Amino acid sequence: MGKIVKNPTIGILGGGQLGRMLSVAASRLGYDCHIFDPNKNSPASKISTFYTQANFDDFDALTSFAKSVDIVTYEFENIPTTALDAIEKYVKICPNRDALFTSQDRMIEKQFLTNLGLKTAPFANVENKQDLNDAIAKIGTPSILKTRRLGYDGKGQARINSDTDLATILDQFNEQPCILEGFINFNMEISIIGARDKNGSVSCYDPGENYHENGILKTTTVPAKITQQMMTDAVLLTGKIMNKLDYVGVIGVELFVSKNGLIVNEIAPRVHNSGHWTQNGCIVDQFEQHIRAITGLQLGDGTRHSDVKMTNILGADITKLDNFINNGKSALHLYGKETIKSGRKMGHINEIY
Amino acid sequence: MGKIVKNPTIGILGGGQLGRMLSVAASRLGYDCHIFDPNKNSPASKISTFYTQANFDDFDALTSFAKSVDIVTYEFENIPTTALDAIEKYVKICPNRDALFTSQDRMIEKQFLTNLGLKTAPFANVENKQDLNDAIAKIGTPSILKTRRLGYDGKGQARINSDTDLATILDQFNEQPCILEGFINFNMEISIIGARDKNGSVSCYDPGENYHENGILKTTTVPAKITQQMMTDAVLLTGKIMNKLDYVGVIGVELFVSKNGLIVNEIAPRVHNSGHWTQNGCIVDQFEQHIRAITGLQLGDGTRHSDVKMTNILGADITKLDNFINNGKSALHLYGKETIKSGRKMGHINEIY
Repeated sequence: MGKIVKNPTIGILGGGQLGRMLSVAASRLGYDCHIFDPNKNSPASKISTFYTQANFDDFDALTSFAKSVDIVTYEFENIPTTALDAIEKYVKICPNRDALFTSQDRMIEKQFLTNLGLKTAPFANVENKQDLNDAIAKIGTPSILKTRRLGYDGKGQARINSDTDLATILDQFNEQPCILEGFINFNMEISIIGARDKNGSVSCYDPGENYHENGILKTTTVPAKITQQMMTDAVLLTGKIMNKLDYVGVIGVELFVSKNGLIVNEIAPRVHNSGHWTQNGCIVDQFEQHIRAITGLQLGDGTRHSDVKMTNILGADITKLDNFINNGKSALHLYGKETIKSGRKMGHINEIY
Repeated sequence: MGKIVKNPTIGILGGGQLGRMLSVAASRLGYDCHIFDPNKNSPASKISTFYTQANFDDFDALTSFAKSVDIVTYEFENIPTTALDAIEKYVKICPNRDALFTSQDRMIEKQFLTNLGLKTAPFANVENKQDLNDAIAKIGTPSILKTRRLGYDGKGQARINSDTDLATILDQFNEQPCILEGFINFNMEISIIGARDKNGSVSCYDPGENYHENGILKTTTVPAKITQQMMTDAVLLTGKIMNKLDYVGVIGVELFVSKNGLIVNEIAPRVHNSGHWTQNGCIVDQFEQHIRAITGLQLGDGTRHSDVKMTNILGADITKLDNFINNGKSALHLYGKETIKSGRKMGHINEIY
């Protein structure tokens, strides 16, 4: 027998499509993955070496999981703090807790960004009706009330107009802490996917232009039609955010392009839907870049070799796949989800144009 | 609950690196894979949804496997006929039996190619010492004696020179049927990866230039430095081979570039080591192309967007990975093999140049 090679096992919290695609990227690098997810048939469950189906308050399961892996990462930022504490007793979590702490709460996130000197929408903390009145007096209407935590794809949000019934609006949110954000007049929404390795080297992908429908990302097109100066600004601010957080891994930064420059909408300390185009636009995609970073490998080449339009396949669109792939210039990515729900992300297409 | 989507399950005979990379490609398309392999810890075992560890003469296991999948494909051509018969009672094998029958035996393969009007090395059947004497009289020396079946990576081959002891040479091959092949004076060896779908549409990748060390492929470089006419010839002959076999899937065709034009060395009815560059040189790689073809999807775009040099990582080279990846322009592919052996294919690098 020859010499034994010990490949690291990567723990991933969450087995959705992002976990699945991280697992695929890890497979290309010869690594094993251990997925932790409350669901039985998550997309990543079928293709990862190890799988734990358990809830995030099952501390025995979390402990066994943590002991079985060499590094833990995650596909979503809303992981309970207690679960992270249980894992961190045994193994490192990457990206780090600072990144999670900052991005889990819209208020803390906005404060972090403004402290860095970056522009955000005007915002105010709202924990009761008096706060709401004060916030509206400061920010005005139309504005948007969001839960500070756990929102995604437009969930946990309500638009505040001059005629909105303020007496009842907070009840909709079950008295969760909220943030009121002013509306931004923007020309387009872009996002930039950045990566930072253990040595502090930073690499950013070209910004993509995002188009949403019903609060859900529908398409990302690269390159975004922005000036070279804005491209540079986007890279610099992403580097600034990652350096401040001593970040290791891939980050998604959503930006509004306004006449006053780039305004940061939000940051996601993970691979991001708006970065799926990298799978067919670059030699090393965001998923492999993330796995490289967290396992201590050097970052790969994120140069864009092709112009790509990424389109999410939502809900029943998956039954009309021929409409998407009857075009030789498209790469198809499906997540293996077994149940169609309206608006559910079932897959995506990367079209080279 | 929403509507249920039933994704096909793909059966793959063989769980080596080719099976693993086929499985990765199938994962991107949302499919499940069921691997059949005699080894416990094959590279594909860790990342496929289902795994059967059994020998190819275990007919109960073959039957269960066949019943559990929607289509069967394979990563190597030397599958026993009896195993194929057992599987084919229940499910279609793709590429078909003709392709396997033709490529499993060098004699039948050469006859098939010459019947198609394609050039090969001069060859003669050798089953005993008289055959060998006759063959040498016809073909001359130096020439090369190969077992008709089961050879790979230079195994099962012996060079015949004018001073070779013919009395003992056949003993080395345990009296297996052999073929004597004349030496070709060639300028380079290239290979071309073709694909054909159920409707007979054909798509070929750009030919790559191969360099071997000790009988094992070391590098493939695209584009091969050949004339446009030879590129066209390579595509046409690959189409001819696939059409004649009513082939569905990806095929590898190895060619010698000589002053008399292209000479076919051998065909492999499967994804091929010399096609690994497509993972980072094209939107749709050979693995996805194969999965698309056998599941009835339209073929994807195989246009080369980058120039690539693929280098196999053999044996202990894997312990010196930094030498390979300390170059931002490289994509790394590792197979998760746990034991290093001399000359063993542990992974490969695709370098964009």
